[in-house]
Amino acid sequence: MLGPLVSDPEISTLFSDDAAIRAMLAFEAALATAQERLEVIPAGSAGKISAAAASIEPDRKLLGEGAVAAGHPVAALVAQLREAVGRAADYVHLGATAQDVMDTALTMRLMTALDRFDTRLKELVDVLAVHAREHRNTVMPGRTRSQHAVPVSFGLKAAGWLLPLVRNRKRLSELRPRALTVQLGGAAGTLGVLGTKGVAVMEEVAKELNLAVPPTPWHSQRDGLAEVAGWLSLVSSSLAKMGQDLTLLAQSEVGEASDGSLGHSSTMPHKSNPVRSEVLVTIGRANAGLLASMHQAAIHEHERSGSAWTLEWLTLPQMAVLTGASLRLARAIAESLDPNPKSMLLNVERSHGLLLAELAAFALAEHYSLPEARRIVSDASRRALEADQQLLEILAAETQADIEWDALANPANWLGATPEFIARALRAAASGPE
Amino acid sequence: MLGPLVSDPEISTLFSDDAAIRAMLAFEAALATAQERLEVIPAGSAGKISAAAASIEPDRKLLGEGAVAAGHPVAALVAQLREAVGRAADYVHLGATAQDVMDTALTMRLMTALDRFDTRLKELVDVLAVHAREHRNTVMPGRTRSQHAVPVSFGLKAAGWLLPLVRNRKRLSELRPRALTVQLGGAAGTLGVLGTKGVAVMEEVAKELNLAVPPTPWHSQRDGLAEVAGWLSLVSSSLAKMGQDLTLLAQSEVGEASDGSLGHSSTMPHKSNPVRSEVLVTIGRANAGLLASMHQAAIHEHERSGSAWTLEWLTLPQMAVLTGASLRLARAIAESLDPNPKSMLLNVERSHGLLLAELAAFALAEHYSLPEARRIVSDASRRALEADQQLLEILAAETQADIEWDALANPANWLGATPEFIARALRAAASGPE
Amino acid sequence: MLGPLVSDPEISTLFSDDAAIRAMLAFEAALATAQERLEVIPAGSAGKISAAAASIEPDRKLLGEGAVAAGHPVAALVAQLREAVGRAADYVHLGATAQDVMDTALTMRLMTALDRFDTRLKELVDVLAVHAREHRNTVMPGRTRSQHAVPVSFGLKAAGWLLPLVRNRKRLSELRPRALTVQLGGAAGTLGVLGTKGVAVMEEVAKELNLAVPPTPWHSQRDGLAEVAGWLSLVSSSLAKMGQDLTLLAQSEVGEASDGSLGHSSTMPHKSNPVRSEVLVTIGRANAGLLASMHQAAIHEHERSGSAWTLEWLTLPQMAVLTGASLRLARAIAESLDPNPKSMLLNVERSHGLLLAELAAFALAEHYSLPEARRIVSDASRRALEADQQLLEILAAETQADIEWDALANPANWLGATPEFIARALRAAASGPE
Amino acid sequence: MLGPLVSDPEISTLFSDDAAIRAMLAFEAALATAQERLEVIPAGSAGKISAAAASIEPDRKLLGEGAVAAGHPVAALVAQLREAVGRAADYVHLGATAQDVMDTALTMRLMTALDRFDTRLKELVDVLAVHAREHRNTVMPGRTRSQHAVPVSFGLKAAGWLLPLVRNRKRLSELRPRALTVQLGGAAGTLGVLGTKGVAVMEEVAKELNLAVPPTPWHSQRDGLAEVAGWLSLVSSSLAKMGQDLTLLAQSEVGEASDGSLGHSSTMPHKSNPVRSEVLVTIGRANAGLLASMHQAAIHEHERSGSAWTLEWLTLPQMAVLTGASLRLARAIAESLDPNPKSMLLNVERSHGLLLAELAAFALAEHYSLPEARRIVSDASRRALEADQQLLEILAAETQADIEWDALANPANWLGATPEFIARALRAAASGPE
Repeated sequence: MLGPLVSDPEISTLFSDDAAIRAMLAFEAALATAQERLEVIPAGSAGKISAAAASIEPDRKLLGEGAVAAGHPVAALVAQLREAVGRAADYVHLGATAQDVMDTALTMRLMTALDRFDTRLKELVDVLAVHAREHRNTVMPGRTRSQHAVPVSFGLKAAGWLLPLVRNRKRLSELRPRALTVQLGGAAGTLGVLGTKGVAVMEEVAKELNLAVPPTPWHSQRDGLAEVAGWLSLVSSSLAKMGQDLTLLAQSEVGEASDGSLGHSSTMPHKSNPVRSEVLVTIGRANAGLLASMHQAAIHEHERSGSAWTLEWLTLPQMAVLTGASLRLARAIAESLDPNPKSMLLNVERSHGLLLAELAAFALAEHYSLPEARRIVSDASRRALEADQQLLEILAAETQADIEWDALANPANWLGATPEFIARALRAAASGPE
Repeated sequence: MLGPLVSDPEISTLFSDDAAIRAMLAFEAALATAQERLEVIPAGSAGKISAAAASIEPDRKLLGEGAVAAGHPVAALVAQLREAVGRAADYVHLGATAQDVMDTALTMRLMTALDRFDTRLKELVDVLAVHAREHRNTVMPGRTRSQHAVPVSFGLKAAGWLLPLVRNRKRLSELRPRALTVQLGGAAGTLGVLGTKGVAVMEEVAKELNLAVPPTPWHSQRDGLAEVAGWLSLVSSSLAKMGQDLTLLAQSEVGEASDGSLGHSSTMPHKSNPVRSEVLVTIGRANAGLLASMHQAAIHEHERSGSAWTLEWLTLPQMAVLTGASLRLARAIAESLDPNPKSMLLNVERSHGLLLAELAAFALAEHYSLPEARRIVSDASRRALEADQQLLEILAAETQADIEWDALANPANWLGATPEFIARALRAAASGPE
Repeated sequence: MLGPLVSDPEISTLFSDDAAIRAMLAFEAALATAQERLEVIPAGSAGKISAAAASIEPDRKLLGEGAVAAGHPVAALVAQLREAVGRAADYVHLGATAQDVMDTALTMRLMTALDRFDTRLKELVDVLAVHAREHRNTVMPGRTRSQHAVPVSFGLKAAGWLLPLVRNRKRLSELRPRALTVQLGGAAGTLGVLGTKGVAVMEEVAKELNLAVPPTPWHSQRDGLAEVAGWLSLVSSSLAKMGQDLTLLAQSEVGEASDGSLGHSSTMPHKSNPVRSEVLVTIGRANAGLLASMHQAAIHEHERSGSAWTLEWLTLPQMAVLTGASLRLARAIAESLDPNPKSMLLNVERSHGLLLAELAAFALAEHYSLPEARRIVSDASRRALEADQQLLEILAAETQADIEWDALANPANWLGATPEFIARALRAAASGPE
Repeated sequence: MLGPLVSDPEISTLFSDDAAIRAMLAFEAALATAQERLEVIPAGSAGKISAAAASIEPDRKLLGEGAVAAGHPVAALVAQLREAVGRAADYVHLGATAQDVMDTALTMRLMTALDRFDTRLKELVDVLAVHAREHRNTVMPGRTRSQHAVPVSFGLKAAGWLLPLVRNRKRLSELRPRALTVQLGGAAGTLGVLGTKGVAVMEEVAKELNLAVPPTPWHSQRDGLAEVAGWLSLVSSSLAKMGQDLTLLAQSEVGEASDGSLGHSSTMPHKSNPVRSEVLVTIGRANAGLLASMHQAAIHEHERSGSAWTLEWLTLPQMAVLTGASLRLARAIAESLDPNPKSMLLNVERSHGLLLAELAAFALAEHYSLPEARRIVSDASRRALEADQQLLEILAAETQADIEWDALANPANWLGATPEFIARALRAAASGPE
């Protein structure tokens, strides 16, 4: 019921039972293919195994019961595959252990998920880049510690949402070869029963499945998965920051941007809640919490851990689906994002020009010492608030300094390095992860 | 597929969409009933609304779309209920807000879940009490910081698993009136449109649903739910400690207890993995992590928060289901728990009697100063290890002290206050939460 | 340097090395006193031990080195105490283990800290109660999902900050007897070397130190400490909610309350940042994260755990100090809290009266069907925004309904059950934890 | 008191107030130098500012009071620096904001800390590589899900500890340019008062401080710091896995390795607790929890956040110090690590040869079908346990198969791909992060 809000069909499908079973069966097929090629099992076996793996529809109830009995469904799955294979049954799952099957099947689906995420990041960066470019000079209040500070532009804000995503694409390209490796170690990571052919089989299986080859099996080395989890949370916390900003900008008193959510209220006819943006924050916080569990789970015992491994299953798929949802929502937001430049300028003015206090102080410092200039501005700021006047008008009236107050009052002169910063962000965005 | 291992059908049913929808509709029925009784809505309306609430089968797809639009499914549900109600439609959901519906519907189901947990805890305590009683004198190595320390009994271990559960029942009885309260505040917690009848309506709705009445609506006061989450994690971490102990006791070198898991390996014919105990640890760690999210979610903004509220939905039901699974597994373990007193004694002996070092030092201290006695024992311990001898035999041979070494070698004399501690634990268990 | 901001001198002193050492020595004195009383050690020993414990100044460097060697400083402390005691040295620490000393010393200081927290909570509740009472009719915009919803009062907001604190006092009174118990179990929780006198010694030590007596030692039952940690985080997340609200109210566009922070900027002369309120949020989030570690740490292995125990030391004192800081800051905020009723009303008006949309719809529903009334209000709301007019004026002009629009425009009529809710909150506050 | 156990002097010094102050002053000096070079401030000012920055000893009490007032100590520091500078005071901190100072000062010290960590990792990898090489054929029980599985070698175990560290060095080299960048954005990230010279000043300051130049200021883009935190936790969880293994190997019943801890007990003369290894687990779990807080803290609001920023200060330095401690402890362990090959073989034998069950089944599968071979071995395993016999002897006696049981009984034949895996790990270790 809440799925359409906080889930992602494309990614949750990857982590469904169906997809897990198909990936596990594909692993068994690849294993047999590799073993036949290396003459570990008789010619002709791999074909039978692959055919059965491609066609069987395992009994789910048996898999569930198997999971209770063994702590994982692999034994029950292999039993059903063997039955389907018939004569070559002895050559199914040869030398592999349950964790080989499940870890590789996880990696295979992570590979797809990470590809999707990279594509979505790229597309999202492109949409945000348009906002950054178009609004490079759209002046709005810069807010620090919840208070108006100095003016910024909406384009700079968009650039600030975009850059972490660009870096996340780069991070992804770096972690991919570490994380997306085949798992094949047999009972305790020695591939003992494969004699001298262990490494060769591992390499062939990796090739079959388009995965990288690790130096050794990683049954008990979980840094790769913990790194993936960290990456997922970096993505969702980056998007949560955007969601947080937009929730704040959508406040009734601020009204500087709508995130395009419908946001109907069940009882108040006038409301338009920034639902999508809020959910970005939700997901960022949820993933941050789940990340801790993945790092706890990295502390496996000995050659293979039951409890730590199971903790990964409870955590990583959930993180991937939440990240998918957050990318989906962020895309929807970015595409319907409706900044309101008029409100932005109005808010600058409503603050009695106090946003220009720092600029004014520096202008005055041409004529006074900086501390004195600051004192003048500080006094004038207080009076602007009390008397409901604009700061620059007070300063123009009260100081004798020869300052072009009109130029200072022109938003185009407020933004400092903003255009250059945006240009740098857009170059980073355009150059991609490389 | 992994559900049968890490889930709990009874509890997950409570947090299904079906159960949520029925509870939300029951809230709307109770609201109408209360309002008719207090003459807020016309006589006859409540019957129509209750009948429709009891019978409609809302379109799930519309609820999902509604959740995307509004951030929750309530508006879409109310719309369907209104349609079913016909003439009295205007009196559906009167004065309530979406959060009233969802929070109360959550509380109703939590009430059932917590009842179930209390019953399960009671039953589990009873089974563990049998182990504590029966094995009060079953000597085994006490282990501290992973090393043999001094002897304990298996009954004392069971008493140590049991006592936190007894305290958790007490905690539950205390938190229940705080957490299981109705939610009814209207748009922003003032029940504005109910005029002077707001509190009375709140009280009547609570009575209808068998919930407690809070001082005020708690849209933005989430300490009650955070406390429930803390309680869930106290239960599952208490059980995780038992799971951790049993996993360690089941180690091949230790072999002092089996948790009754089948634990078949997919490739090794001889293994019997303590799957259930491992999963207790998994769930304890998973809930500990999720608990942080519930405390993060307690930081709601203003009168109602979108993002923090949604974070609760992602977290609390998951914690409840995991806790259910952990109680289910713990019960299965406790019932099939098979301690091996022979192995326990063998392990005491295998350690060359070093477990008795402290007792021996104190016996010798009748004749030597305590530091000297300790030095003697320490030397003898080293030699016992080197020469593969029993500590007490070395001490008997080498010291002139008039000590009844035979009595010291009798396990019955090792346990100190153990029987008394167990009796105290059993009394606590028997007295229940009151 | 940041200590004055995020720490609390009174509480951090309790968790200093000094205080830990004095408490550990007090435990050794109490143990000797109890043992002499029960004739476990010779008459006269306890006096010598207590005198030495009260007067020695242990060498810190040796304690640090001892901690490296043993994983805790107790052995090094006991060695120094024995040296100071002289002749009765053998009777120091008799039958106790390091964890007895450290856990009891922790409990002793927690007792003091929790007393302080309770007093501070009571005082804070009293100050907030004044705000709740004084501002019971101070109308301000109620905000849900970041949007104006319907009017509330500032007093209701204060009542919402206050009630979780009242409940936290109640929780504290409940957990105290569970958590503040003596620890005395000896090497592995059996008090083996004390023969039949173990329980009696435990009871006497508890009496000496004014602690409760647990059913058994709790070396490996850590639910009591995890519960304390949960309570600390409930306090700080409750205060974080207040901090979050005040940070939002202090925004430049909102300006409805100042939390009394100085909040100077290093470069902008006009700013006044709600520093205290921000830090409340910081601490709430920090403690929420640390709480997870305390629940992870509850999973001790066997009779005593090295790693889980050490994790408690890294976590619980930190949580206590942060909670102290958050109570200190909240008190400062509550005392200097400066709500701005004029701004509040202005913000209601600035929203074109849309906050009154729900009330208007219900008023119109006397004359139209409720859906029709809602449609009328929704249309009028849109036009109010577009044309910069007040909603009620449009409705008065455009509907023929015989409605007393003036009465509806009177803030006194907006608050529904608010005064009654506040009265209920104040009664709860006044009745205290009992 | 516990510092020597869980802290690290070299790293904690970097995060002391002293070091923070010196780094902040160095930033101010670099800023002035850059600005003089670019003619933003008059010639001669930078020298005066740098000299004062290098020599002043700021009043700590004022900094603490300043932190309370402003939420950070920068304003108070700048005031003292200005006073010391005299005539050029106006040119101190020109155009910068407090966060520029603190973030850059953090980055400067992180740069040093990460350098140290890299060196320590390299050295640790080298020591572990010796163990991996020397013990490549040292047979020990492989343990999965806490049960004996099949034989592995201690060298393979060491290789499994080593490889995540090698990958962590690679990760570090990748994240360095992203994380170690200068922060310079002024009040709200626009460098508004520096006119057209902003980017040039930023680049010069970076050059002065040997930091990288970011595309834009990152006041509100915290992915770089969150990534650093993730890396720290990857390091400490990798080491925690080693600590967990060694704690388990040090168990009294296992006795296969000592981690070189002294581990004296305060009361039991015979104990030798694996204190260092336990603390590795502690730190791994502590950092995993703290990591969540750093990802929560990544959700900054608008241009600069008070609460999220402060949360970083409470978290990241702590993580760095804990990581330092864990590297220090791991090095001490690795250097004094004392594996016991005799115990390892003894444990293999004590398990009645069941570790060889899988190998035996595959040997028999040359003569029987694999399922039949497994059934034979499974039966024989049960009988080996019951009759206290060796599995291979039973199989040799009961099967007619022509198998070289002596060869199978030779440990050299048990390890499968182990030597090759170790060689691959050593190559990875030797090639370093590049």
